[in-house]
Amino acid sequence: MKRHIRFSREDDTLLLLDQRYLPGAEKWFLCRRVRDVEEALQEMVVRGAPAIGIVAGYGCCLAAATTDETDPQWQEQLLEKMYRIAESRPTAVNLMHVVDRMHQAWRTDPDISLSDLKWMWDRLAREIHNEDISANKALGGYGLELLGEASSVLTHCNAGALATGGYGTALGVVRAAKSAGWNIRVIAGETRPFLQGARLTAYELWQDDIEVRVACDNAAALLMQRGEVDAVLVGADRIAANGDTANKIGTYNLALLASWHSIPFYVAAPSSTFDLQTESGRDIPIETRPEQEVTHVGSELVTPPGVPVYNYAFDVTPADLISAFITEKGVIRPPFAGAIQTFLDKG
Amino acid sequence: MKRHIRFSREDDTLLLLDQRYLPGAEKWFLCRRVRDVEEALQEMVVRGAPAIGIVAGYGCCLAAATTDETDPQWQEQLLEKMYRIAESRPTAVNLMHVVDRMHQAWRTDPDISLSDLKWMWDRLAREIHNEDISANKALGGYGLELLGEASSVLTHCNAGALATGGYGTALGVVRAAKSAGWNIRVIAGETRPFLQGARLTAYELWQDDIEVRVACDNAAALLMQRGEVDAVLVGADRIAANGDTANKIGTYNLALLASWHSIPFYVAAPSSTFDLQTESGRDIPIETRPEQEVTHVGSELVTPPGVPVYNYAFDVTPADLISAFITEKGVIRPPFAGAIQTFLDKG
Repeated sequence: MKRHIRFSREDDTLLLLDQRYLPGAEKWFLCRRVRDVEEALQEMVVRGAPAIGIVAGYGCCLAAATTDETDPQWQEQLLEKMYRIAESRPTAVNLMHVVDRMHQAWRTDPDISLSDLKWMWDRLAREIHNEDISANKALGGYGLELLGEASSVLTHCNAGALATGGYGTALGVVRAAKSAGWNIRVIAGETRPFLQGARLTAYELWQDDIEVRVACDNAAALLMQRGEVDAVLVGADRIAANGDTANKIGTYNLALLASWHSIPFYVAAPSSTFDLQTESGRDIPIETRPEQEVTHVGSELVTPPGVPVYNYAFDVTPADLISAFITEKGVIRPPFAGAIQTFLDKG
Repeated sequence: MKRHIRFSREDDTLLLLDQRYLPGAEKWFLCRRVRDVEEALQEMVVRGAPAIGIVAGYGCCLAAATTDETDPQWQEQLLEKMYRIAESRPTAVNLMHVVDRMHQAWRTDPDISLSDLKWMWDRLAREIHNEDISANKALGGYGLELLGEASSVLTHCNAGALATGGYGTALGVVRAAKSAGWNIRVIAGETRPFLQGARLTAYELWQDDIEVRVACDNAAALLMQRGEVDAVLVGADRIAANGDTANKIGTYNLALLASWHSIPFYVAAPSSTFDLQTESGRDIPIETRPEQEVTHVGSELVTPPGVPVYNYAFDVTPADLISAFITEKGVIRPPFAGAIQTFLDKG
């Protein structure tokens, strides 16, 4: 996969591969200011918790680039822009983590000039991006241990290159297996309403020559019953201190179905996805997105006009349905209570 | 709901409300010969096990109408046309039942003239149609008993007027509740890939002023977890002697999710859906349908070209996940082994 998040320091622009048009067309979305970044995140030009975080980092750089140093209020203005970025999506914790980290860096030198801050942030945003890719590769290696003999993996949504800095969490494990010469096949659940599985997971695996087949979300139980699924492997948007995991709507469905069929259910996520401030899944805010995503597929209307719809973007999978977490620091096995904190501290 | 299957004896035509264009447009599909009926069933102009059976009955009438009595081989030709109708879809047992019943009627008078057979079949096909509507109304009444205090019902696919002669099985229970003055709400699972829930269930309930809201299939577990589902109510395409039930892909998913959340899971189906010749779900053939239904929504391509997909049209829910069957003869409660045979014999 080519890089899908491209920041240019020379002209202070952020180019994003627009995921709304995939797989039909490869269009690029140009961000020059914070408003563009907000739009890119809210309209799902880029989605996926780690990718959102990376874009937020570069977004802070754009915020700095579009702030006027001669204005005596430039610091307040910049801070206000950072808040806007941090609040553009509610569920993924990576977004808050990255904005926090940019803010922390600034606070180490509160009297820094705007041009020096720009320079510092540029380095930091790239570092966050590169760290993500390295973390995913490390995570992929740990995932291999767990996968064992599994050759057919069901995944949900897109926890791949397009959801991260460029390698993938759940699909990072798949890429690691492929690199290791394993014979691995992926079933991509199509993931209504936004169809990230059908559109994005299938796209990036097909590009990387990894065997992939798309299934409607409705087919999951049948495929498990038929023995076509050795393991379920998903990403995460936020993991609470007790292990409850928010991820794309439909993940909780799959966790229950996997549990019933005694199929391991793995969550692959960088440690930045853990949110120790959030005690349990009950405390994770679940984003509700526009009805249009359900009532239409592309330009095709699929519900009668006027009929209301549900569009919760995420659900929470209780920790006790999760077989293990795969992180860049290693694997966390149940019981998770306490173990998560200890594990993260250790790293 | 207006009648969606209309047979005219005067000019030997069968008009079908074309469900492929709903809810966007109300187009009618005209059948004059068996080829048209095969196309209507295979291309899902009409779908739903009981509706398929009713169309098959009228299809036999068209077969007779387009057969030449002066041909000494007319009986063989007619029989061959009946086979073609019977084989147009593999999973729903009603189709076979109806063609069998038409055939039985013929066999009571093997020397009957073609014109007399036409007359006899016309009456029988209408009888089968009217029986279905009466059966659904009776079934609806029995369903009320079971529903009790349930006010929010999750349904899958379309087991409504459009799937039957005109009243509905699962939605027949809903209509009965509405008629009884109950405050009933329906969550229509959208039912990928063909979106019968989003397109058809929402359409017919909205038309009949019954509260309905569409949810992506992925949201089922979340909605159950939030207490938004009091009961799951689905139809069936074939029920084996042991109670294993073939129904639209995704039904087995819902049965597992309902079981996990201790929500009752009811199957509403006329007794013609039971197939005592089929011992268990293992023996029910599962139709695989064209990839196009998954790769496209309307004209919108949703998977990368070349990526293969799964399109099993049905799955089988094991009997032990089913809380009860609702039929026009009453309710069948577990344990089902033996009870189904006894119950059907009794009627």
